[in-house]
Amino acid sequence: MPPDPAVSAVRTAVRRLLGSAAAAPFRGEPLVVACSGGADSLALAAAASHAARHGGIAVHGLVVDHGLQAGSADVAVRAAEQLRELGCSARVIKVEVGTGGGVEAAARHARYTALRDERPPGSLVLLGHTLDDQAETVLLGLGRGSGARSISGMRAVDPPWARPFLGIRRATTEAACAALGLEPWQDPHNSDSRFTRVRLRTEVLPLLEDVLQGGVREALARTARQLREDADALDVMAAEVQSRVEVRGALDAVALKEVPGALRRRVLRSWLLERGIPEITDEHLRAADSLVAEWRGQGGPALPGDFVLRRAHGTLLVEAAGRKPPNV
Amino acid sequence: MPPDPAVSAVRTAVRRLLGSAAAAPFRGEPLVVACSGGADSLALAAAASHAARHGGIAVHGLVVDHGLQAGSADVAVRAAEQLRELGCSARVIKVEVGTGGGVEAAARHARYTALRDERPPGSLVLLGHTLDDQAETVLLGLGRGSGARSISGMRAVDPPWARPFLGIRRATTEAACAALGLEPWQDPHNSDSRFTRVRLRTEVLPLLEDVLQGGVREALARTARQLREDADALDVMAAEVQSRVEVRGALDAVALKEVPGALRRRVLRSWLLERGIPEITDEHLRAADSLVAEWRGQGGPALPGDFVLRRAHGTLLVEAAGRKPPNV
Repeated sequence: MPPDPAVSAVRTAVRRLLGSAAAAPFRGEPLVVACSGGADSLALAAAASHAARHGGIAVHGLVVDHGLQAGSADVAVRAAEQLRELGCSARVIKVEVGTGGGVEAAARHARYTALRDERPPGSLVLLGHTLDDQAETVLLGLGRGSGARSISGMRAVDPPWARPFLGIRRATTEAACAALGLEPWQDPHNSDSRFTRVRLRTEVLPLLEDVLQGGVREALARTARQLREDADALDVMAAEVQSRVEVRGALDAVALKEVPGALRRRVLRSWLLERGIPEITDEHLRAADSLVAEWRGQGGPALPGDFVLRRAHGTLLVEAAGRKPPNV
Repeated sequence: MPPDPAVSAVRTAVRRLLGSAAAAPFRGEPLVVACSGGADSLALAAAASHAARHGGIAVHGLVVDHGLQAGSADVAVRAAEQLRELGCSARVIKVEVGTGGGVEAAARHARYTALRDERPPGSLVLLGHTLDDQAETVLLGLGRGSGARSISGMRAVDPPWARPFLGIRRATTEAACAALGLEPWQDPHNSDSRFTRVRLRTEVLPLLEDVLQGGVREALARTARQLREDADALDVMAAEVQSRVEVRGALDAVALKEVPGALRRRVLRSWLLERGIPEITDEHLRAADSLVAEWRGQGGPALPGDFVLRRAHGTLLVEAAGRKPPNV
């Protein structure tokens, strides 16, 4: 009997990722699966275990217990048991979640740090993020509005992280679990509307799918991937331009003017960050760029951190303002 | 007495656009304002008239009557009267709206064609699109999911078109009309929820603003502008790459492999379009790219229009399939 279509889909996704050029440096190393006990990471563990059996490699399951919900230790123990039943080794890591920057961000930071530190050296850590997660991440980024980077979502391979399910719907991971007789944990946080991500999932995306007549999550995921590739290409080219126009910490504004605006502003951003400007908005960059592209002898903009940008003899320089700059 | 802040804002926006480098080729030529009688285009006519008085140039108002709503001729006559009161000349153009591709698209096509044909030669046509329109356009494009181009919105200057209000909220144009004693026409189509754009405006955007805690329209407009600049830069660079790797209608796959994926796929897309492939999806492009970036002697993909892509001796060729290709 052929396997269930959902089981085939999750297995194919893991096999494809492991066979990709990006994963090649990790071939033959043990695999790590980060598992919460939810449908996505349980399906991931099952698919990874299947692939590993064929490839003769070991799969280590790591379960992070954030200690944020009553009974979280029991949930973690249950997930570890399920991992062992799937033929993986399994270990629970208890983490301390800090309080800076909101509980979601703090939990994520603690989780990624623990996974990175506890994985066998040289191993790839598989994460269960799905196409639905990617679509939600893109929408979250849209609210920031800082260009391609903010809406380019998560990378499929970003060593040591790998996300085989970015092209797979969450419902497919649930169907795969059902077909394999796996009972996933239902995280109550996933329906708690105090979380922005939950409201995007349960309110915004269903409405958008209705208004735009379907296919929105897939379109968001496709766009994210293309924008990431665009941003990667532009970053590489901007670095080349910067190495050409930067001389002893100053920028040759005359040479910089000759490149397209998208590259100019990337060069300016990277150069200003290296000069120690703490936060650079789109508005700052456009003001800085006007000294390059629309030079008419005007003064330069004040920058965060009590700095000012100045153009002299065709080059740009960052200087201490020497006084409190006006509130910008 | 200083002018009302909303009036200042719309005047500044028009003055800035007319003073920009992109508008320089049109300096001294007459200005055209496309006016529906709605708040955005009425505020635009007022601001353009103000700027033109200072600059000693003429402003021609063009009112397009689409004939789609009962009383549309009266609405057009009223808008023309308002334009004349603002010191512009005014003319009503009656257009025939076709039926292909939906009524919104057909009306837009008829409107742009009429404005282009009827404007004085060499003139810039100012359009009243606001930041709200831009945000709605980005969301509409998100549903298409074909990368930066689909969500990069409208251009501020795209001769003969110019859109000074892409950074101005719709509410500001309404406030400017109120301050100037102008009574805008309320288009009933703007609240007709059969239109996708109306639902984005009245349902999706308010929900997104609530969930993401504000600033979403501004973020979408900012992102659109950055993505457009990115796409422009990548298109220029891809054209340079193509001229280098294309030899007598074939592509040098070995040379093409050396450039970043974002450029490779743009080169492939443009080259395939020039070979007469009618519709190219992201999936086609990724299949074509695998012949370049992941060449292992595999066969090439079938393409729409009964074509097939083939790699031979390090070059890519498009050939007639010679048979009905499998349904893709």
